[in-house]
Amino acid sequence: MALIVQKYGGTSVGSIERIANVARRIKSWHDQGHRLCVIVSAMSGVTDQLISQAKQLNPHPNDREMDSLLSTGEQVTISLLAIALHAIGVPAESFTGARAGILTDGTHTKARIRNISPERVLASLQNGNVGIIAGFQGQNDEGYITTLGRGGSDLSAIAMAAALKADVCQIYTDVDGVYTTDPRIVPTAKKIPVLSYDEMLEMASLGSKVMQARSVEFAKKFNVPFEVRSSLTETEGTLVKSETPDMESVVVRGVSLDRKQAKITITGVPDKPGFASRLFRALADAAINVDMIVQNISAAGVTDISFTVGSDELDKARRAAQPVITTLGATGMLAQEGIAKLSIVGIGMKSHSGVAAKMFESLAAAGVNIQMISTSEIKVSVIIEESLADQAVRAVHDAFGLSA
Amino acid sequence: MALIVQKYGGTSVGSIERIANVARRIKSWHDQGHRLCVIVSAMSGVTDQLISQAKQLNPHPNDREMDSLLSTGEQVTISLLAIALHAIGVPAESFTGARAGILTDGTHTKARIRNISPERVLASLQNGNVGIIAGFQGQNDEGYITTLGRGGSDLSAIAMAAALKADVCQIYTDVDGVYTTDPRIVPTAKKIPVLSYDEMLEMASLGSKVMQARSVEFAKKFNVPFEVRSSLTETEGTLVKSETPDMESVVVRGVSLDRKQAKITITGVPDKPGFASRLFRALADAAINVDMIVQNISAAGVTDISFTVGSDELDKARRAAQPVITTLGATGMLAQEGIAKLSIVGIGMKSHSGVAAKMFESLAAAGVNIQMISTSEIKVSVIIEESLADQAVRAVHDAFGLSA
Repeated sequence: MALIVQKYGGTSVGSIERIANVARRIKSWHDQGHRLCVIVSAMSGVTDQLISQAKQLNPHPNDREMDSLLSTGEQVTISLLAIALHAIGVPAESFTGARAGILTDGTHTKARIRNISPERVLASLQNGNVGIIAGFQGQNDEGYITTLGRGGSDLSAIAMAAALKADVCQIYTDVDGVYTTDPRIVPTAKKIPVLSYDEMLEMASLGSKVMQARSVEFAKKFNVPFEVRSSLTETEGTLVKSETPDMESVVVRGVSLDRKQAKITITGVPDKPGFASRLFRALADAAINVDMIVQNISAAGVTDISFTVGSDELDKARRAAQPVITTLGATGMLAQEGIAKLSIVGIGMKSHSGVAAKMFESLAAAGVNIQMISTSEIKVSVIIEESLADQAVRAVHDAFGLSA
Repeated sequence: MALIVQKYGGTSVGSIERIANVARRIKSWHDQGHRLCVIVSAMSGVTDQLISQAKQLNPHPNDREMDSLLSTGEQVTISLLAIALHAIGVPAESFTGARAGILTDGTHTKARIRNISPERVLASLQNGNVGIIAGFQGQNDEGYITTLGRGGSDLSAIAMAAALKADVCQIYTDVDGVYTTDPRIVPTAKKIPVLSYDEMLEMASLGSKVMQARSVEFAKKFNVPFEVRSSLTETEGTLVKSETPDMESVVVRGVSLDRKQAKITITGVPDKPGFASRLFRALADAAINVDMIVQNISAAGVTDISFTVGSDELDKARRAAQPVITTLGATGMLAQEGIAKLSIVGIGMKSHSGVAAKMFESLAAAGVNIQMISTSEIKVSVIIEESLADQAVRAVHDAFGLSA
């Protein structure tokens, strides 16, 4: 008899048949006596089609009108899902973001949730209804519809779970959980039953396919446990929750891999204050996502700074960095594509020594050279040759005994 | 410098190109310095597609959810139209029915407008925006989205024009006005420049193609003059307004024709109170639209009652009438398809005698037999053989000198 929040993404509700299938899944939970609040996305393809229509009329459509336009996608899904539930005898009521009491700031197309007034939804649940809520959208102070940007429906689900004080928040997706590493690389990779928020955030390449960092951060902030699970099977997924002492017994939780990285090294940087700030301000102003940054101790008054970006942003990053190099008198810039970032993640690392050494040893034994190293409390990342990435993942995954 | 309400139907906004075209038309009015409030329907086909999707999931979808579902159709159009206007430099703001302050009763799928609070729209107009409002929809006391049923967007336009105290309400459609008769039958038929509300209502076969009676009645009740005109040309259409003395100078305004009518005659009806009420209650309960009703003086204690229905409702009407005939002891029932109703309409009739006689003479001269006659203050209708309908219309149209 729990209060369960579920979220189904665009693929899970991508056709009339799939909506009917989601309705049957909801019914099976409902029949067990649980109270349910279900957040849904627009049917897959709908949002892109609306964007395309708007851009045909205006290459730079107004953000406020785009929000009103795109919000119709989820509004269609909530009504269709409620109608499908009625057909199989499950009482249900649909709610737009506004009717569900999701209040946001006024930043159209990427609004932030400010507050949720869940009274209407709670009253409907108390009347025995399944509440069906449009994800990705809310309303600002002035009554305008807003949307939450990428990954917004996950955010709606987490926030709704917090507001309703739900017992569980289930994020249904097309993978059945988070694995110790990509099973396409290591077929014996196993599903991780429990992860901390921080581990989920650090499992970049694994986690980000499942959920945007933003939603995980929100869940961490409001301490909302959530489960990532498949909308195609009945198996349990991965539960993400706040750190508990027993989590530390597992030293390394998983091995994560980001391909398509590129590295830029600025050589001969004068060892004076201000260079790094100027450099990364210029990159930020060009909207370039910088990932790892490594700077060594200077020798003879000059030093090197290396950083990584997505390989599709390499050219843009070089153009943005060049004026800073020229102005502040560094000697040069080296760029390299074809690299990958391999990370081991686990909160157990904090209390275990020798983790990094073990990782480096396994890479050396596999003949993989390490180009850059960066560490955090719960992660060790290395930059390696992309062509060696698969064998590197297998070696590290094996070294930490992560296979099933 | 007028305040103009315009309404564009689903065909006028049926594609991205057509929305761009409507935007250009609005711009030309806006550039003349007028303030504009524009009501739009869903793009043609969208509403039917949504209905079809819902029916695939549930043959009897919930009315409230259907309203929420169907309202997305207009919500897409308003945003796309606003975005198109921005592209050509016209400031515009879109409003769902709810945001426009359209408050209705709670009768989902065929709600009635109760009240309009136009403050938000007025404020936006005062800020220089063109207000773009979703037709066909409103919101009830409880915050649920409602829809107004067939012809609802016309109703939204008329009601908005009343609330805004607009100078003009223009209903754009795919015909360029109301004609003296169907130009496909009489090529010399001419466009009627001015009609009274009552004449518009009585011009059934001409008027109903253009606008539902409901919207005309609403316009009459709140005295909102409106103009029916084409969204494809620039020519003036037909202005519909309250009766003025000079309208009476034209005796007959137009000739209207309803095809696909059927006639039922109940014979040997005992001339006692109660038969007609029982008969038409039974037909009403079966949701049959009865049009003309004719009863003659009784002879020898029995009489005949004839009435007309749409020919597609003939079988249903016979089944509904049979029990009454049996119970109350009429002698029989005759049914006839293949008839048509021809009407002349004009408020001038009230003050001119001999109008009906002239009509009957012209029909006799054309060799058309009259089967039933019914009159109102501003209309004379006759039932004739459908195969003779075209020549009958030509004869009557000619007799009253209606050709251009």
